[in-house]
Amino acid sequence: MDLLKQKIEKDGVVLSDSVLKVDSFLNHQIDPVLMQAIGEEFAKRFKEDGITKILTIESSGIAPALMTAITLGTKVVFARKRKSLTLVNDLLTAKVYSFTKNETNEISVSNNFINENDRVLIIDDFLANGQAALGLLEIVEQANAKAVGIGIVIEKAFQEGGKLLRDKGIKVESLAQIELLENGVVTFKEEVTV
Amino acid sequence: MDLLKQKIEKDGVVLSDSVLKVDSFLNHQIDPVLMQAIGEEFAKRFKEDGITKILTIESSGIAPALMTAITLGTKVVFARKRKSLTLVNDLLTAKVYSFTKNETNEISVSNNFINENDRVLIIDDFLANGQAALGLLEIVEQANAKAVGIGIVIEKAFQEGGKLLRDKGIKVESLAQIELLENGVVTFKEEVTV
Repeated sequence: MDLLKQKIEKDGVVLSDSVLKVDSFLNHQIDPVLMQAIGEEFAKRFKEDGITKILTIESSGIAPALMTAITLGTKVVFARKRKSLTLVNDLLTAKVYSFTKNETNEISVSNNFINENDRVLIIDDFLANGQAALGLLEIVEQANAKAVGIGIVIEKAFQEGGKLLRDKGIKVESLAQIELLENGVVTFKEEVTV
Repeated sequence: MDLLKQKIEKDGVVLSDSVLKVDSFLNHQIDPVLMQAIGEEFAKRFKEDGITKILTIESSGIAPALMTAITLGTKVVFARKRKSLTLVNDLLTAKVYSFTKNETNEISVSNNFINENDRVLIIDDFLANGQAALGLLEIVEQANAKAVGIGIVIEKAFQEGGKLLRDKGIKVESLAQIELLENGVVTFKEEVTV
């Protein structure tokens, strides 16, 4: 997705060989124009998949998931990393290990909002080691729903998450795939347009 | 806002005399159609106020803030409750005490995204004791920006937050004001239409 790649090149900050900071438009400040375009792009890529529900995880997944939901005409559910006071019963939960933070969070979703008839699209801002996406997949499975696809805004293709998920046979669509972060420069993976 | 009130009456669950659960459309599952209407309503109420930036707090504030930003044509910044690994320098911070959770969180915003020229609209999903809104106001002040208004989706008018904020002379717009939660029934405050 060209608009996104241009934005990453212009405003992304390469903090190290594994960390790209995109807090000026994606995960702290949000650029609504870009976010609308992201939602429309995800919707285009999954429009034939009969999606009935979008599942994401707080906080940075909410904006792209919501914009996709608007175009696809579905509702969004976001998994919580911390339990809500009013969200206590009938929880679907999964453990998600964060390599960067070196901690495990239990994420949770009320089972009122995903059921066995749902065809679920998982959306997240980043894909690195794939732990969050795997946790969301586990929740979809617990609900006996069908995980139809995974939409990622920025995939760090040099980490193993993408391979892990694609090896499961799941359709994974990443709007920008980063091959390398080096010397402050972002190198994108060549896109294979089908 | 009638659509919102109807939704609260139909799908809100009164858990106690102080807790209203709206996780089926506002703060866990999100109804995009309602959220678009909420954004348009906030935009209408603040369209003459020269807003340049919208400030909210993760996670449930993000959706209404983003939808408002799309209509007003501004960017959104969401305050974090937990520090990000890539968000470490130049932070504006405020302490926010949660009465319901009985804990204090430090919320933070990068000072790259609010400056002294900004006219800031604060958006949040709930207003009860007003602690989150006060924390966000403190952050706006630290940035030497101007807090122009506060937009709240659901105000618990029987708690003191609304009075606290309005007594500061700030324009506070709540799309649904709840006067009473009692015996499972939601009573809305009469709206004074100006």
